[in-house]
Amino acid sequence: MQVLTKSFQKVAFQWPEGFYSDGIHIGLRRQKKDFGWLFSKVPAAAAGTYTTNQFQAAPTKLTKAMIDQDHQLQGLLLNSAVANSCTGQQGWDNAVQEQTWLANKLAVDPSLIGVASTGLIGAQLPMDVIKNGLPQLTPTKSDAVTYAVLTTDKQPKTICVQCELSGHLVTITGFAKGSGMIHPKMATMLGFITTDAQIAGEDLQALLSDQVDETFNQITVDGDTSTNDMVVTMANGLAENPNLTPDTADYATFAAAFHTVLGELAKQIAADGEGATKLVECNVWHAASEADGQQVAKAIVGSNLVKAAIFGEDPNWGRIISTIGATPADLDIDHVNISMNGLPLVADSLALPFDEATVKATLGQSKITIDVDLQHGDASGQAWGCDLTYNYVKINASYHT
Amino acid sequence: MQVLTKSFQKVAFQWPEGFYSDGIHIGLRRQKKDFGWLFSKVPAAAAGTYTTNQFQAAPTKLTKAMIDQDHQLQGLLLNSAVANSCTGQQGWDNAVQEQTWLANKLAVDPSLIGVASTGLIGAQLPMDVIKNGLPQLTPTKSDAVTYAVLTTDKQPKTICVQCELSGHLVTITGFAKGSGMIHPKMATMLGFITTDAQIAGEDLQALLSDQVDETFNQITVDGDTSTNDMVVTMANGLAENPNLTPDTADYATFAAAFHTVLGELAKQIAADGEGATKLVECNVWHAASEADGQQVAKAIVGSNLVKAAIFGEDPNWGRIISTIGATPADLDIDHVNISMNGLPLVADSLALPFDEATVKATLGQSKITIDVDLQHGDASGQAWGCDLTYNYVKINASYHT
Repeated sequence: MQVLTKSFQKVAFQWPEGFYSDGIHIGLRRQKKDFGWLFSKVPAAAAGTYTTNQFQAAPTKLTKAMIDQDHQLQGLLLNSAVANSCTGQQGWDNAVQEQTWLANKLAVDPSLIGVASTGLIGAQLPMDVIKNGLPQLTPTKSDAVTYAVLTTDKQPKTICVQCELSGHLVTITGFAKGSGMIHPKMATMLGFITTDAQIAGEDLQALLSDQVDETFNQITVDGDTSTNDMVVTMANGLAENPNLTPDTADYATFAAAFHTVLGELAKQIAADGEGATKLVECNVWHAASEADGQQVAKAIVGSNLVKAAIFGEDPNWGRIISTIGATPADLDIDHVNISMNGLPLVADSLALPFDEATVKATLGQSKITIDVDLQHGDASGQAWGCDLTYNYVKINASYHT
Repeated sequence: MQVLTKSFQKVAFQWPEGFYSDGIHIGLRRQKKDFGWLFSKVPAAAAGTYTTNQFQAAPTKLTKAMIDQDHQLQGLLLNSAVANSCTGQQGWDNAVQEQTWLANKLAVDPSLIGVASTGLIGAQLPMDVIKNGLPQLTPTKSDAVTYAVLTTDKQPKTICVQCELSGHLVTITGFAKGSGMIHPKMATMLGFITTDAQIAGEDLQALLSDQVDETFNQITVDGDTSTNDMVVTMANGLAENPNLTPDTADYATFAAAFHTVLGELAKQIAADGEGATKLVECNVWHAASEADGQQVAKAIVGSNLVKAAIFGEDPNWGRIISTIGATPADLDIDHVNISMNGLPLVADSLALPFDEATVKATLGQSKITIDVDLQHGDASGQAWGCDLTYNYVKINASYHT
């Protein structure tokens, strides 16, 4: 876990200098916003991380190809309802068509345009609906686009932070969608982070890839890795700060602010997991390695049995320790401590007596923190998930194919 | 998938020659049978496979140590309700005490006695209750012991097959428990297979270890690997068949019969998964390797999203293909075929039209078979699981700590 310097602050939602967007309803979903765009008035340095699912969807592949060219992007076209995944050559052609249309609308080279889709796998995009929708998109400073990417999400996930870099005010604004099929190997949802900071594309990519590992990649809702997911970040430089390069104080400040944006979005996704009533945070302390700490934390928040127990507000530490033991992490099996919301339940791998009423009251809270002390090293790890509820089953048993 | 020769037959439940058992209620559970034994009148060749969970429970460790010595066992003491797991030195001492008591009762060396416990993790065995219960166990030919090991199981899992080996009738009788915390790395539940066949302990161990991989290790209910699980098999030789050695016709017959016993018990566990309404079988064809086939099959039956869709009787093949793509299996991503209960849904990774009414009727059945043709090799794999239901959540949100 990274210790953050607090030389930045959260602020009310706003877009960084030079970024515009819109989100509208064009008929892909029944009533809700389902189509949007996001662009910078000048080309922006860009970076992305993408799902590791072998059936990577056409829009994900296309956007990755654009960013990989020269880490530049200016606009993104977004839709929900249809994932354009497992759609073959026609799906790829449709993604390219969308790219061309948006390039024409913005009068920029198509190589500066990415696309992102989320929704049902296997269906083709209704291209006539999208063609008709495109002229309706206007450049606004609203947060409407953060609604247009939602599927089973109850609410949009957004965060905005500002920091001062060498006297220049820099804004970082992120939004994300994701509620089910959440178990990132790389980036399992859609996430978009915009900033007016000045930073080279390669440095932005390194920063993103590094920080995604301990944020988006440490959340799980259901252990399933989607075909469409990506996190894309665009930095247009309009804050006019001196170019950010690693090993400078400004870079450290920016990195800490950026980490907060990724971390907060990740937690918002976990908290809005399908059917969830509780956000679960697991902190693993004194692991033999960071990989062990991360792995144990993620296994715990990913266990169906632990998740169901948390829904039942039951301090069932047996399921937690069993989950720890099922990982290949290096353990001192006689010296594991476990507490939930600060209440010690296990010391040196043995049960502690606890007061039933106190535990019940504590586990009734909407955020559950599980602390595991492995007493076996100096590393730590953190992961976020949610409880497993009747509504999770309901949502996923009735999602229409 | 092994092709079985049908030179054996399933018969009504009965114990092999020389095996006796009992199952009674002594007060570990409220009303149900919770305590039992199983023994052979002569020492039997024995083999076992054990959970890979790092927090292996005391009874599992003790039984493994006994079998590892010289692959001999004569008796087993069994209980449900308390797992004697994560119970430290006292838990180990209690397991050894149980072993001693049963050795005295049977007047055999303690090294011939194993113990098995299943139930809540972290609680100590009430040794006074067990001490009082022991004299009540009698040698019967009933199936009562198959009830004594149950926890959240709705019913016992049993199977009995007979074959003729060089003119000698050989019986193989298996029983198992397991409903939740089912996701074997080695053997995730309790399973006991008795036979009067004559076979060396080392050969029995090799046969068991080999066949567990494609039976018990290919079932999953919830992705959780328990601390207590093991499969133990005992062969007492009283059928007086010529000693079974590999590469003989008798051995092949016995191996096929044995495989059926393991496979049927595994399927019965999956079908009785916590809250399950449907047994799910996944067959993967034309995989690049057997490991790929097994891995893909198990990933599919293990996906919460697939399981919830099956509960909802929804032919959501997008979740199946996404699960396939999330594995590291070697794939030809443009040539995957998927069908459910014989209805083709996907050909060459693209959607096929299907008749909604036909699909609904088909998916209303209590057994769902998912066939995946990877069109990418000559290997295959098979796995079994169940649907994810409201009752799974209910059972696991209310299981008392």
